[in-house]
Amino acid sequence: MSIAIKNDFESHTVDIKQYMAQLGQRARQAADVLSYANPEIKNAALLNIASAIDKHRGRIRSENGVDMQAGKSAGLEEAMLDRLLLSEVRIDAMIDGLKQIVSLADPVGEISELAYRPSGIQVGKMRVPLGVIGIIYESRPNVTIDAAGLCLKSGNASILRGGKEAIHSNQAIYRCVQQGLKQAGLPEFCVQVINTVDREAVAEMLKMNETIDVIIPRGGKSLIERVASESTIPVIKHLDGICHVYIDDRADHRKALDIALNAKTRRYGVCNAIETLLVADQIAQAVMPDLIKAFTDKQVELRGCPRACRFDPAAIAAADDEDWETEYLAPILSIKIVDDMEQAIVHINQHGSNHTDSIVTEDYTRAREFLRRVDSSSVMVNASTAFADGFEYGLGAEIGISTDKLHARGPVGLMGLTSQKYIVLGDGHIRH
Amino acid sequence: MSIAIKNDFESHTVDIKQYMAQLGQRARQAADVLSYANPEIKNAALLNIASAIDKHRGRIRSENGVDMQAGKSAGLEEAMLDRLLLSEVRIDAMIDGLKQIVSLADPVGEISELAYRPSGIQVGKMRVPLGVIGIIYESRPNVTIDAAGLCLKSGNASILRGGKEAIHSNQAIYRCVQQGLKQAGLPEFCVQVINTVDREAVAEMLKMNETIDVIIPRGGKSLIERVASESTIPVIKHLDGICHVYIDDRADHRKALDIALNAKTRRYGVCNAIETLLVADQIAQAVMPDLIKAFTDKQVELRGCPRACRFDPAAIAAADDEDWETEYLAPILSIKIVDDMEQAIVHINQHGSNHTDSIVTEDYTRAREFLRRVDSSSVMVNASTAFADGFEYGLGAEIGISTDKLHARGPVGLMGLTSQKYIVLGDGHIRH
Repeated sequence: MSIAIKNDFESHTVDIKQYMAQLGQRARQAADVLSYANPEIKNAALLNIASAIDKHRGRIRSENGVDMQAGKSAGLEEAMLDRLLLSEVRIDAMIDGLKQIVSLADPVGEISELAYRPSGIQVGKMRVPLGVIGIIYESRPNVTIDAAGLCLKSGNASILRGGKEAIHSNQAIYRCVQQGLKQAGLPEFCVQVINTVDREAVAEMLKMNETIDVIIPRGGKSLIERVASESTIPVIKHLDGICHVYIDDRADHRKALDIALNAKTRRYGVCNAIETLLVADQIAQAVMPDLIKAFTDKQVELRGCPRACRFDPAAIAAADDEDWETEYLAPILSIKIVDDMEQAIVHINQHGSNHTDSIVTEDYTRAREFLRRVDSSSVMVNASTAFADGFEYGLGAEIGISTDKLHARGPVGLMGLTSQKYIVLGDGHIRH
Repeated sequence: MSIAIKNDFESHTVDIKQYMAQLGQRARQAADVLSYANPEIKNAALLNIASAIDKHRGRIRSENGVDMQAGKSAGLEEAMLDRLLLSEVRIDAMIDGLKQIVSLADPVGEISELAYRPSGIQVGKMRVPLGVIGIIYESRPNVTIDAAGLCLKSGNASILRGGKEAIHSNQAIYRCVQQGLKQAGLPEFCVQVINTVDREAVAEMLKMNETIDVIIPRGGKSLIERVASESTIPVIKHLDGICHVYIDDRADHRKALDIALNAKTRRYGVCNAIETLLVADQIAQAVMPDLIKAFTDKQVELRGCPRACRFDPAAIAAADDEDWETEYLAPILSIKIVDDMEQAIVHINQHGSNHTDSIVTEDYTRAREFLRRVDSSSVMVNASTAFADGFEYGLGAEIGISTDKLHARGPVGLMGLTSQKYIVLGDGHIRH
């Protein structure tokens, strides 16, 4: 299969396998240099990129206009067109995002736990980049900058594949990235944006085990599922955000109400919003009327188990089995009355998605047990699930949230894009 | 396909898929309980297992005798028979190993980095088990106890698949494990040893993504390659141990000699022994004669680059390209004279296996640069690569050495068998 690769400097037709292989080799070479680049150089590159974006706003917006026009002609939905749009405010946000990344501590080279062993050697760990990171995302062109920035700061080369509808915007942004890298004296292939809309490029990318160390898909469930099932390279991902708040019978009423409401209604389309509210039977009589009123006031559609429905059959529809495993991403909430915390934990571990779950309780022992037993990437006590976020956790920025257990778990920031190697310091030590 | 499953309690014929699926489900259920078992209970189980092994020595040795007899009849090599043998000393070592695991701190539930955020929530990390670990190993039956003990202590259920030639020994050991678990009140399926020699069981195991969280192969390269290529479950592995010592031109001669000799000759068949010695051109004249003498005194066969051969063409044969990428696991050493550290680092990153590499130098800046740039799981300064070992690093015990970057890297001990989840403590906090 042949594709036309178009950019400012060259225009030629190459085989897609060759094209991707070349991207991989260039990324690997760039990663070798970037892995031990000094913080000053990486920060200079990030600031250069920010300046270039500021300087070339006009061009970025006009290229984005080409994408928007094509999107409209192709009949893209309004929501999709909104994600595609690069307004002045969003360009400002891209620039601010880069400056924030500059302000974060450089994780690479950090040495920890350096301790003397009985043999006399000193053993510790040094934080190192992963190498080459492949990122596959959808329509938002600003992800190009987020992803490039985080990978660069963490010393990783990146190969970025954005949505086909954003290709002109992404290429315009990419030229600013290249310029910033070159000005800082870094290889321009530290970041590469795939310049073809051919889906074959993704299939190829997911098999490049020799040149890509980890793949991060960012987008809807179908994208992530496809990537996870096809990739032979390790994937950092989360599929669903089926989050819960459990109101224990020893909960403070005010906290229970505030947290349940905030966790559902702060924003509906985000992965850390709850889909199911679990209420202990013994407190249900006391809190359900207020909960029902608060949610119906906010126009949240309620679906409940038979016990929940009994509180207000007019306000709560009967939930079916599927409701307990559905990420609505919408103003819909399922409510289940449980006998006790034991039943709540079992429900969460069985129906949840290991994302974020919170208990509201004043009971010390139950709080401890809930924290231990709930098998999710974030487990909370008396706090809203809306806090599950890289910025709120102090990671500075996040590239995604991982619900897997190996390597990164929870919000993935700069640390999640690194690994650690052992270092051993001796003074001529040999092992007897 | 049908197989006969034989054990003391039941004897029946089942489908291998069904059999493995049952093992998986039982492991998952056991893992749920084990994941929050108290340290006292896990330690009691480990000590019970140790007692049971001590008590049933006679039986273990007689079952091992059955395996040894079958091995001899099948014409197994002497080295293989030696690995298979369970002597009294090795049984003692198994018991001691369990007691050492008891003495290690329990990693599960450990909370770290718990810090207040500007929003008022407190965010930290809690260490948690991975879940179910599948371990595939070869002829040594004592691995059954090492693996079961480390998985148990780290709160993970395990499914163990030993070598077919050790099946009677493994089953005899396993009965002690079951007894110890039951006495401690833990589910007996916390540890399961596959009771069939059918290779199909391994193929099946490697696809059980729903019930197994991570696979650890322990054994020769062909086993590990097969597991890595067939498994759809994440694998913690190392393939080769192509380790290097680089003698910098600012090395102390004595340290250089001691370290090079120890790193090669302490033991030949281990992964942390060096295969290639790199010597800076400027120091070669001064150290090569001593090195050649020391190695030839130890009957180590030397193969060198043209510059190395020139020092003693009688003692050093010409190395070919393959020599730089071969794990000899034998008294053979390749020697290359390099221009400088730059060339040494490039050689190591290109030809090494990211296992363990050491520089001998008195130069501060070069030591720092070597530590940063060598992309291996252990990087050392003035210390023998023989130190790359879980016990030497203070991990207490190791289940293997990982040369991958994701998740565990270097010697994998209890920590490597766990993950971390975020915990958030609030006091009714909601996100604005």
